[in-house]
Amino acid sequence: MGINDFLESGNERLDKQLLFTAEIDRMTDVLRRTLLINKSRRENDAEHSWHIAVMALLFSEYALEPVDVGRAVQMCVVHDIVEIDAGDTFAFDEKGNVGKAEREKEAADKLFAKLPPDQGSMIRSLWEEFDAMETADAKFAACMDRLQPFLHNTLTDGHTWGNGTVNRAAVEKRMAVIKEFMPEVYKWAMANMDNAIAKGWMAP
Amino acid sequence: MGINDFLESGNERLDKQLLFTAEIDRMTDVLRRTLLINKSRRENDAEHSWHIAVMALLFSEYALEPVDVGRAVQMCVVHDIVEIDAGDTFAFDEKGNVGKAEREKEAADKLFAKLPPDQGSMIRSLWEEFDAMETADAKFAACMDRLQPFLHNTLTDGHTWGNGTVNRAAVEKRMAVIKEFMPEVYKWAMANMDNAIAKGWMAP
Repeated sequence: MGINDFLESGNERLDKQLLFTAEIDRMTDVLRRTLLINKSRRENDAEHSWHIAVMALLFSEYALEPVDVGRAVQMCVVHDIVEIDAGDTFAFDEKGNVGKAEREKEAADKLFAKLPPDQGSMIRSLWEEFDAMETADAKFAACMDRLQPFLHNTLTDGHTWGNGTVNRAAVEKRMAVIKEFMPEVYKWAMANMDNAIAKGWMAP
Repeated sequence: MGINDFLESGNERLDKQLLFTAEIDRMTDVLRRTLLINKSRRENDAEHSWHIAVMALLFSEYALEPVDVGRAVQMCVVHDIVEIDAGDTFAFDEKGNVGKAEREKEAADKLFAKLPPDQGSMIRSLWEEFDAMETADAKFAACMDRLQPFLHNTLTDGHTWGNGTVNRAAVEKRMAVIKEFMPEVYKWAMANMDNAIAKGWMAP
């Protein structure tokens, strides 16, 4: 039944890679606050990660520094894997964000140890680079990670800005990396914030 | 409501990119036959595409030719986008596969036309290269596309090989690219086919 049915290959390294692959299928079970654009249900981490990876193929021309799209896409697909154990933390939940770094570090220690050491380090490095938002590739991937739920919000009555509990300053803080790294896209975001406030989807 | 709420940016190219991003969120609604490993429900195309993209970071060492992982990951995240309009065709449904190429070509014409022409061509090229399975990157991405549902099947009582309607020859045909391009992984797959037949999950 389930993972107990796994048949060992006789190659320990291959087994680790296959079992890690099976393990991360749990990303489909980590729900985000964001609604799908058709509003049918909440999005999960696997869907979100896929969505921003495709976006990374489309938006690099707005980045202020040259971006290696192939690397950025790799960052996009692994950036939330630690949430399998740490859980998704709602971006606008200040209390929930306390201790997030420690929770995610513990999750990373546990999860990436399941891979062969060289690959555990490789994926962990991609994740840490993403999280630090210092390199051009990481800033760009972070922009995709912020732009996707923002776009969803503009098309779902500001769902995760819901009921005036989130104000413009909080959204601007979340979008700061886009302001810095993709100013052309940020202009569109600002117009949407004006619109969201006018419609009552966001607090002023 | 929904897409009608989209606020134009004044930059036609950016609007196309944002609207295409919104459009492909429909990938979350294209259900595959494959079950999630926890057996709770069927997997969707967005989840599958994400899963094989992460796998592409892990399995390139088994490829018989050098692979550009960054390119392969890009192929993985776009390889099923045409199914938004063409629908998912079950790999072992011979009748359903009749006309698949035409359906997908029509879907590609329609979908990729929504992007700025250079980007429509870029994504179309990645998809066509994947589909042709001639380059090393495409063969490798195709291996991930076959290995992932195979792994799921081994952990979900052979769900999509269900009830003896799919026989070993059909599965071997589907897995041929792995036999050719990743023989070490294919050894594990063969042992699993023996096991699946012994357990009644696959017809001999």
